[in-house]
Parts: sequence; structure tokens; C-alpha cells
Amino acid sequence: MYRVGILGATGMVGQRFIQLLADHPQFEVTAVAASDRSQGKAYGDACTWRLGGEMPPSIRSMPVQPPAPPLDCDLVFSSLPGDIARETEGSFAAAGYPVISNSSAFRMDEDVPLLIPEVNHQHLGLIEKQKRRYPSGGYIVTNPNCSTIMLALALAPLHASFGVSAVAATTLQALSGAGYPGVASLDILDNVLPYISSEEEKIETETTKILGRFADERIELAPMAVSAQCHRVNVSDGHMAAVRVKLARKPDLKELRASLELFRSLPQELGLYSAPAAPIVVRDEQDRPQPKLDRDAGNGMTITIGRLMPDTVLDYRFVVLSHNTIRGAAGAAILNAELLDRMGKIFHKIKST
Amino acid sequence: MYRVGILGATGMVGQRFIQLLADHPQFEVTAVAASDRSQGKAYGDACTWRLGGEMPPSIRSMPVQPPAPPLDCDLVFSSLPGDIARETEGSFAAAGYPVISNSSAFRMDEDVPLLIPEVNHQHLGLIEKQKRRYPSGGYIVTNPNCSTIMLALALAPLHASFGVSAVAATTLQALSGAGYPGVASLDILDNVLPYISSEEEKIETETTKILGRFADERIELAPMAVSAQCHRVNVSDGHMAAVRVKLARKPDLKELRASLELFRSLPQELGLYSAPAAPIVVRDEQDRPQPKLDRDAGNGMTITIGRLMPDTVLDYRFVVLSHNTIRGAAGAAILNAELLDRMGKIFHKIKST
Amino acid sequence: MYRVGILGATGMVGQRFIQLLADHPQFEVTAVAASDRSQGKAYGDACTWRLGGEMPPSIRSMPVQPPAPPLDCDLVFSSLPGDIARETEGSFAAAGYPVISNSSAFRMDEDVPLLIPEVNHQHLGLIEKQKRRYPSGGYIVTNPNCSTIMLALALAPLHASFGVSAVAATTLQALSGAGYPGVASLDILDNVLPYISSEEEKIETETTKILGRFADERIELAPMAVSAQCHRVNVSDGHMAAVRVKLARKPDLKELRASLELFRSLPQELGLYSAPAAPIVVRDEQDRPQPKLDRDAGNGMTITIGRLMPDTVLDYRFVVLSHNTIRGAAGAAILNAELLDRMGKIFHKIKST
Amino acid sequence: MYRVGILGATGMVGQRFIQLLADHPQFEVTAVAASDRSQGKAYGDACTWRLGGEMPPSIRSMPVQPPAPPLDCDLVFSSLPGDIARETEGSFAAAGYPVISNSSAFRMDEDVPLLIPEVNHQHLGLIEKQKRRYPSGGYIVTNPNCSTIMLALALAPLHASFGVSAVAATTLQALSGAGYPGVASLDILDNVLPYISSEEEKIETETTKILGRFADERIELAPMAVSAQCHRVNVSDGHMAAVRVKLARKPDLKELRASLELFRSLPQELGLYSAPAAPIVVRDEQDRPQPKLDRDAGNGMTITIGRLMPDTVLDYRFVVLSHNTIRGAAGAAILNAELLDRMGKIFHKIKST
Repeated sequence: MYRVGILGATGMVGQRFIQLLADHPQFEVTAVAASDRSQGKAYGDACTWRLGGEMPPSIRSMPVQPPAPPLDCDLVFSSLPGDIARETEGSFAAAGYPVISNSSAFRMDEDVPLLIPEVNHQHLGLIEKQKRRYPSGGYIVTNPNCSTIMLALALAPLHASFGVSAVAATTLQALSGAGYPGVASLDILDNVLPYISSEEEKIETETTKILGRFADERIELAPMAVSAQCHRVNVSDGHMAAVRVKLARKPDLKELRASLELFRSLPQELGLYSAPAAPIVVRDEQDRPQPKLDRDAGNGMTITIGRLMPDTVLDYRFVVLSHNTIRGAAGAAILNAELLDRMGKIFHKIKST
Repeated sequence: MYRVGILGATGMVGQRFIQLLADHPQFEVTAVAASDRSQGKAYGDACTWRLGGEMPPSIRSMPVQPPAPPLDCDLVFSSLPGDIARETEGSFAAAGYPVISNSSAFRMDEDVPLLIPEVNHQHLGLIEKQKRRYPSGGYIVTNPNCSTIMLALALAPLHASFGVSAVAATTLQALSGAGYPGVASLDILDNVLPYISSEEEKIETETTKILGRFADERIELAPMAVSAQCHRVNVSDGHMAAVRVKLARKPDLKELRASLELFRSLPQELGLYSAPAAPIVVRDEQDRPQPKLDRDAGNGMTITIGRLMPDTVLDYRFVVLSHNTIRGAAGAAILNAELLDRMGKIFHKIKST
Repeated sequence: MYRVGILGATGMVGQRFIQLLADHPQFEVTAVAASDRSQGKAYGDACTWRLGGEMPPSIRSMPVQPPAPPLDCDLVFSSLPGDIARETEGSFAAAGYPVISNSSAFRMDEDVPLLIPEVNHQHLGLIEKQKRRYPSGGYIVTNPNCSTIMLALALAPLHASFGVSAVAATTLQALSGAGYPGVASLDILDNVLPYISSEEEKIETETTKILGRFADERIELAPMAVSAQCHRVNVSDGHMAAVRVKLARKPDLKELRASLELFRSLPQELGLYSAPAAPIVVRDEQDRPQPKLDRDAGNGMTITIGRLMPDTVLDYRFVVLSHNTIRGAAGAAILNAELLDRMGKIFHKIKST
Repeated sequence: MYRVGILGATGMVGQRFIQLLADHPQFEVTAVAASDRSQGKAYGDACTWRLGGEMPPSIRSMPVQPPAPPLDCDLVFSSLPGDIARETEGSFAAAGYPVISNSSAFRMDEDVPLLIPEVNHQHLGLIEKQKRRYPSGGYIVTNPNCSTIMLALALAPLHASFGVSAVAATTLQALSGAGYPGVASLDILDNVLPYISSEEEKIETETTKILGRFADERIELAPMAVSAQCHRVNVSDGHMAAVRVKLARKPDLKELRASLELFRSLPQELGLYSAPAAPIVVRDEQDRPQPKLDRDAGNGMTITIGRLMPDTVLDYRFVVLSHNTIRGAAGAAILNAELLDRMGKIFHKIKST
């Protein structure tokens, strides 16, 4: 069991970390930290639990600490807000901690893996380069933006088999993606918001890094055009995207469907604890996927694709859905950590005192 | 004042017809008809009013009649369900009535105008051809599907100025588009439905007819690829579409914006009663258009465009919004009738007895 | 293992029966029946699954049968619509089946138990009287209306300890209580409906029967005034009621709270499979209970009470919440069956052929 | 025309003030003030308009000023947050301004009228007493809490005719009552919140003051028990309350209904600009009132009562609904000002420079 610290522990994603780690066989939460006014309080007093079920009892009395090293743990998971993530995560890496981050601060740094274990585990080679920044042995591994993850995961088998030359994604994103308090109820009741700050840019840039090749100790961005139009809809959890793709080699529908449905990768082969049996499920009902019915597929780690059909402007189109705070955030980071552990990148630290 | 009959008067669009015609200077509702079990009852008893405000008092005691000629009126507006619209509307045209229809039954017929007065009033030349079908002088004029109208209206100035070669539209459509009772609340609360029956096909086919050229007494379909992905969201009124376009000649953003914003057409020149001052409003706030804030622009007859910017896969992208039961249905049909009147295509009938 | 038939298997409550029985140690679904057009189809084709997760595979290919005896089972659970429940359930009882019903048809019959196992298991003595109606040995046991259950369960310890002389309940009820398709989305978005057909009457009459005394082979209604005002709100699952009570003996708040929180009864003593550890949980946070956070307490079988405080018009007030299709319907019926089994009232039938 | 200043101009109620005053015949907005970071900006830049339609053009370029005298106006409307209202409103009154306040700060002060013009215009006699506090001639008149207004207005004719001895109100309140950003969308989607800070206390105390008698220069509280249980539901505008009343003299239902429906008072007699023709409308449909359909009755100034019937615990019960930011806030204050003007309590000030 590794001892784990959570940075940003009181937020929506921080709560998911705690929920998903409550019964985890490899990781045990031993420290919680937050940048807000909750420092010094017990977690149970500092934090209103907003997920179903009860707050895990073991965490209730844990004191909320400032997000700065040292913390009593072997590695940290971070979901800090963007404005403080860069400095804080950097200081943990400098202090020798593996930083498994859901924040956007380091995602596009040249020596930082933007990891989806099923898609680009080769990119972990970048960790070696971080030794220059962090001689202590600490490092940073990030997971993509919540919408980018499902898009890149859906594109991965298509890109491997047929070559994706262009992709246009139009998202319908859930409220939990904005954190808490996030979107005001008066803004979203009987409404759609056609704008999410920085989201279109993140999808357009992160996707080409994730699908890029690791060669010569660097990532060669995937040569594809990516277009994103993002919307907030009145859904609690579950991001959806309507996707059109252009392929270098155009397969028939059956071959395309098979490449998605049969996709398995390293996490499935290694049997990682959080890895779903199938990363992608393809459904043939004409009205699926739906957030309410499909977000919990594979305990929130499976993405669901439906409405797969030829497109009249690009080659094919489909709708993809994933749980944005599990596969799209906390679950993604935990799967990253599980892979890092299996690859020998996580160590027991001497317990701080 | 022309006397008007409403076919499908008890449905959502039927109620909008009655609401919009309550104070109309040219049209007075003198007959209401419906295919359901409400026949024989007074309209006020047959119909639960589902729009804001009260049912117009003049309509309350009007008897609901079967939807078959003769009706005591000079023309009929129809929003009959698809399965009975074709036979019923045909029988009214055969009996000499102008049929201004919001139903899909005749939209793609070769001799039937699929009319948006700002876009393709030239297509009204097709009415002449209908004399072969309906020697009585009756005829059918249709308006497009609720999503197609806003898309075609947005594309019209672009197509005229730059040539649209491809368009990919992803819709987020309101509940009222499904009629009443329509979508079950359990299906849409905390959810999105990625499927609307026949909607994608309608948008893909109707758009090329509307933007087609009228020549040699027929419509030459516009040579453009149209792709539609349609979704139902938890919004009462106001369809939204995220649109990407490819243009034969690519203007700069400023020129593109001007072509949309300055667009005016025949209804504005003629000062038709329901014509908005501007068919298209372009907003520069980064989070507009929104259904709740923009659906009532121009009394529901103006479409609102926002988030206009270059696109990385096609040339430009934007988000468009319109009121689906006003500009997208009842208001569209009424504007059609106003234009037909101005062009001398509507006559006072001898009052039936 | 008893073999179980589900009457009304395709509805919302029918689906809950199937979900809750999927892994039940005592009951196995061997027959599904419905009154609608689904007869003859496989259940998986007849029924769109509307609950989270997947339809249990074992049920998928089971044929939907007409709701009439004989069915291949030892007992039936019924959630038939009111209009056909009386005749159909009666015919099953006459044919010798125990009928564990969630329908309202027989609830107020003099010889039919209206059972909440924690509250009035003594009422099962009425089954003896049904031998006059059903010499075959079949019988009918009902559970209360979904709102009544939580009210009666909350009142039970108060009535036992202090005597309830009056209760005024104002409900905020979930959409799933109306079945499927149930409430139209256009009726409930941005709205509240202050009316649910027959609901106020059911709460006002059923409560006094449930809390009544069984003596001399009959139920003596509890001598209390019950007032109910019912509303439908835009919530998927979880009925809430704001309750005010007047007590014959007025305890202090601490004693009142303890009587609720410490309440345990026969199902807890017997360790019935579906019995929650605590039938009632009392929460002290000022903003609980909430449907989203508390409906799944005790796997949906625990009711949650909060905002317990003195009242200025009656004696005390509180807010109570329960899962309306689990504790309020399917789960209630299953708990009833578990108790009946333990009391020796369920038998293995010779398998019909 | 009086020149009007708005304190708290950027909030939800502040925007309603501006919207309702845009075409007002007696009042013209000449100053806007807010306590937040918007000071110094133009109103159009400081404030995101959250109501339907566009921000009135005349207000767009008006500078947002600090909420402190002097302001260029003859009187001020205030909807300041509770924490600063007391000091700020007091300073305006001390400086000689009539302060027409929607804030709670002064409502229960002995010398401050808590005014509903239809109910207790006699209480304006208290203004005389304020001369001791404010020798300058300024004074404060408040309107009740948004839920209290509709309750007190519904009770007024009953209390006058029959004597209300007890009232138990259970509210279902709209989101706009919490201001902006107010309730987080994640808290209210698929949920109900059974708690609104201080709301129950306000209803319970304010009601007896409003319905109290003005005698000997003071208010004698109405001798009635008032109980309130308050809930937040997912509705944009329109507070609803389920009400039970006990009457000193119990009339029959017909007499009770008539007393509500025929209720008219001073604002109707005087023909005040914002006074609705009927303060109370009684509807007989079994499913009314509904927020979406009834909140705009009488331009938001009429309250709607339905489901009027005998009650089994108290004497009668009904459901009442009103627009919480019009009749319940900004519209209430404006009606108060209209009455004050008619009673000669508002004067033109020398224009400040």
C-alpha cells in the first residue's frame, strides 16, 4: 500500500479521488490538502460531501493541510485550480514526490506525459527527461482534459488502424466539469451555455499530443486537424461529444465498428485495478449513449459510443460519452498511478514526521 | 381580413398559431380542427393551454371540427401529424384552399415550395405547377423543419456571397419540438437524448432544396454536402446548432460577419407584419446565443448567431439559435402566408354555410 | 428459492422488482406478465430498460405473458395499473397464489393487510379471513402508496410512544411515482404541479388503517386527523414530505428524536434480507434530507428524517424522505414477501406445465 | 417624474427594478449603486443582464456608484444584501431620502412600516415616528420577504372576514429568490433543498406584523400562530406555498372563495400604476396554480390561489403562488412607492451636483 496525498481534496474531483480510493488495494489516503479556507479543519468539517453515499469514515477526521511539501505520503494526486497548480505541483515534484495531476498546468509541457494508459503509455519515457528539472526523482504525469480523454480514447484505435486526418467534435458537457459551486442554477435551468472557458483550445491542442508519437525522447504531434465546439448542458455527470472524423484510409462501417469495440490495450493486459474490461463499448440502439444510462459503464471508466454511421461531410460520425469526473478526471489519474506503479515508478518514501 | 382555419389546432404548434394570430391584422381564426378525440368539444374544453398567458377568449367556445374540407375559412394553416398530413392537406388543396403547412408530408415534393421568405421566395413559382394537381386553384406551401429553418437562414447570405460547399451542423433541440406530451420527463431530466426521429435526414435533404435555384420551373438542389447530428436537451423552447461551414470563396472574418448581420430580404423590404427588422442578429459576447436569453429575439422571428470564428477542419464555425415553434414552425408559416397574400395568392372565399 | 411472477413487469415498478430480485437469495423471477401490447415478445424486446445498469441477462429472453393464472411461479408480485389490478389480482388469489401487491385496488379492503413489516405485522392476521374469499389458499397482501409508506413509518414510533392525534403532510414527489411515460417534460421543466390524482385521499385514508390496531379479527382505524397536500417536483426518484404532528403526550425534542432514531422492529430482529439496519435515520444537518443525497440510504429501504424541531401550530415538525420505487413500492413488496415467508405463508407450488 | 436611485442595482432584484421602471410614468432611474466590485464601471459593463429581453438602453452607460448619499435622485429603492443594508439604508434616510427597501434589515423595527398596500396601508402612520430618528425628513418603508408577501396577501381578506387563528405554510420556492449566483446547479438538479436560511423565521414573524393593527402609533401583532416549512425547488421564478388555515369563524367554502376572489383594496381604488386589477385570482382547475403558467398573472403582481378545499387538520387549505421578484420584491417596492407618492410622502429634491 502506498500512502497518498490529495491536493485540492475538498473540490468535486478531490471528493471523487477520495471516493474511488476508499477501497483501493494499492493506495491509501494519508493526507488531504486544499488551498481554500478549509485548512486546519478536519476534512469532515471543512468539506460538504456532494457525491452519493457517505464520506468515507477514515477521512472524516483527517486535518486539511496546506498544499505544500512535505506531506505524509508517497505520491500526490492533484486537482488544484489552474492558477496555483503550476507552482504547487512543481514544488512537490521538486521535493521528490510523484505528482499525478488532473490539472491543466503542465499538460502541454514538452517533458510531461499527457497520459491515457490505453493510448500512449510510450509517452512515459518523458519522465526520464524530467530528471533535469527535478533531480530529487520527483516527476509530474498529467491526464488530459475531461472532454479530451474520451475523444482521444475513441480516436486511438481509429488512428492506429486507419489514420485520423481530421476530427470535428461538438461537446455537450456536464455541470460537474465546472467544479463546485460552478455553474449557477439560474444560468442553466431551461438553457444551454455555448461556451466553456479554454475548453475548445484544450481539446484542439491536447488531442494531437496524446495521439502523437514518442520518438527521440520527444512527442511528435499527430498531424491531424482538430476542431471543437463546446457547450454546457443541464446534466450532472457525463460528457457527450458528437464527433465527425476523416480517415486517411476509409474502412467500411463493419471494420470501423470492430476496431472500436475490440480495442484493448496495456491496462487490460496488465489487469490494472481501475482498468475496465473494455475501454470502449459500442451500442447499436439508435438513442444511445445517454448520460444518465451510460456514464457509469465500467464503473465510469468505459466510454460508450453510439450512432456510428457514415457522414456526408467527413467520413464517419458517432456520439461518444464518458463519466467526466471518473474516466475524465479522478479515475484517469488513478489509472495513471496504477500503471506507473506497475512500471516501477512509485516508491515507498520514508514516512515524514 | 382573411378567415383562417387551423388544422392540428390542439397541439403545441397549433396553440402557437392561435396565440400568434390573436391580434394579427390580416388573419382571423374562424375554424379549428384536430384529428384527435377532441372533435365536437369547444376548443376551451378540448385543449389544455400550454403556453404562457391565457387562451385567447375568442377561441374558447369555437367547436373543434374534423380536419376535412369544407371549413369556414379562406385558407388553412396545418400542423397535422405526419401520418395524416399528406391525405388531409391534399384534400384541402384539392378543394381549393391555400394550404400553408408546417407538416413534413409535402416538403420534398417537386412542385411544392419549401419556403423561407427571406431565402427563396423565387420558389413560389412552383405554385403554378400545382394547378395540374389541383385544378380548383388550391395549393400547398410548406415551411421547413424547425432546425432546418435556422440553418438555411444562416447559410443563405453566406451561400449568396461566398458559396457554401459543405456544412456540418450539430443540434441541441428543445422539448417543444417533440410536441405534447412528447418527451417523457424521466427520459430528459439529468440527460441528453442523441436521437430525434428523421431529424438528421430532414436537415440534410431540406437544406439543399431551400438553397437551390429555381430555374426552368423546377428546383435545382444546391450542390453542397450537409451533415447533421441531432440531440434533444432539457430546454423548453429554442433550438441551437453548432455549425461548421466550408466556403467556395473564403472571406475574412469581418466580411463574413457583415454578410450575416446586414442580411435583409424581401419580407423586410415589404414590411410584412411578422417579418423581424433583422432576420439575423450577430452577438459578440463569448457565451451567446443562449436559448433562455435569445429565443424571443425579434418576437421569436430573429435568429441569433454567436461564437463566429475560424474553424480548423472546415473554414468557419458559429452557433445559431432560433425559437423553434415561432420562427421554426407557426411563425414561419404565418410569414409565408403574409408573403403569399402580398403576392396576390390568397383570396376571399365565399363563406361556406 | 421460490419462483416468482411479476405482474406489470414492463412498468417502472416492474423493472424495479426485476432489478431488486436479480440477486435475491429467496426469490427467482420465473415469469413476467404485462397487460400492454408487449405480450408474446421477449422481455428484452418488449421493454426499454429505464433504470441504471443493464437489464439482468436472465430476464432478457423471458416471454411476456398475459397477466392471468396460471403462471409458472409460487407467488406473484403485482404492480398492475389500478383499472385492471382488482380483477387480475383477485383471479390470482382465487387460483391459489399469494399476491404481494403494490397496486391500490385492494388496499382498503377490510380483510386485506396494508402492510409495512416494521409497523403493523400484526395485521397479517387478516389473511385468515381471506380464506372465505379464496378457499384455494391464495391471498392478497398489499403495501401502501409510495408517500404513505414513509409517512406511516415515520409516525409509527411516535404513535407508539406519544400518540399521534393529528398530522399534516405536504409532499414534494418524484417523477418516477407517475410511472412511464408519466409526466410530460414540458409540464415539469421550470415548474411544480400542485396535484397528483387521488394521492391526497390515499395518504389520508391509508395512514389510519396502517397505524390502526388489529383486534377481534379486524382493523380499528387509528383515531387521528390526517391532512395531505401533494405536489410533483422535477426530481427523478425520492419522495419528500414536510410533516407537522400533534401528539397526545408531548415529549421534549430529545425524547422525540430518540424514538425515531432508535426505532427497530420485527424485520430487523428477524434479519430479513431487504430490511435495512435502521428503518429511520435522523440527520442533524440543517439542509437534509435531500432526494439526491438520501434516497439511496439503506439501499433505498431507509427513510431519512431531518429538520426535526418544535412547530408553532402543531407540536413538532420535520422533513422525511424515502426512495419511492424501492421503500415506496417494489422494495416494500419484497420485504412483505420476505416476512410472509418467514411466517410460513409461502409455499412451493407444483410447477405448472 | 421623480428621479430614482437603485441600491444593489446589479443583483437579481436590482435588475428587476430597472426592468420594471424602464417605462414607468412616475419614476425615472437616474442613479445606480452597488456594493460590489462594479463601482466606477458603466452599468452595462458592470452587470450581466439576466432577465429576458435587453437591458434598457438608457441605463447602459450610467456609472455604478458607491451606495452612499448623496445620489442624484429624489428617493432610493434598495435591494442591498442584509449585511450592509442596515447601515447604508439608515444613512440615506438620515440624509433625507425616502428609502423604499426590499431588504430585511429594518422590517421588524417598531417604527418602520412593513407594507403591502392592499393589506396594511394604515401602517404608514409609523413614518411620523421616524422623524425622531431622521429629523431630515427621510424615512424607511420596507416590503416583506418574498414568501411572506403572498402569504399575508392571501390571508388578509380571510383575517378581515373570519379571523385567522393559525396558519401553516409549506413553501416551494424559486431559484431567483436566492439571488445570483445563488443556488449551485449541482445542488438543485434532480433535487430539492429543505432549507433556506432565515426564511422560516421571517415568514413566522413578519406575517403577524403585517396583519397586525395600527393603534396608538404602534403595531399590535396579529394574535395568530404561524408555522413555515421552506423548500427550494428547481424553478426559475414563482414561489408557491401549500397553506392550511384555522379560522375564528369558519365560513362555508363558497363564502371563503368569494372573500378571496372579490378582495380589492386601496391600490385598486386609487388605480396605482403597478396595482393589478385583482390582487388575488382564484382558479378552479385541479392542477393550478403552477409557477410556469401563473407567475406572470397581472404582470407578476397578482397572486394565484388554487386547490381551495376543506382541511382535515385545520379548517381550510389551498395553494398560493406569486412572482417572487415582482410581487415578492421589486414590484412590491414600486407599488409601495406609488402609494407613498399618492399620499404625499415623496418630494422633488433639489438636484445634487
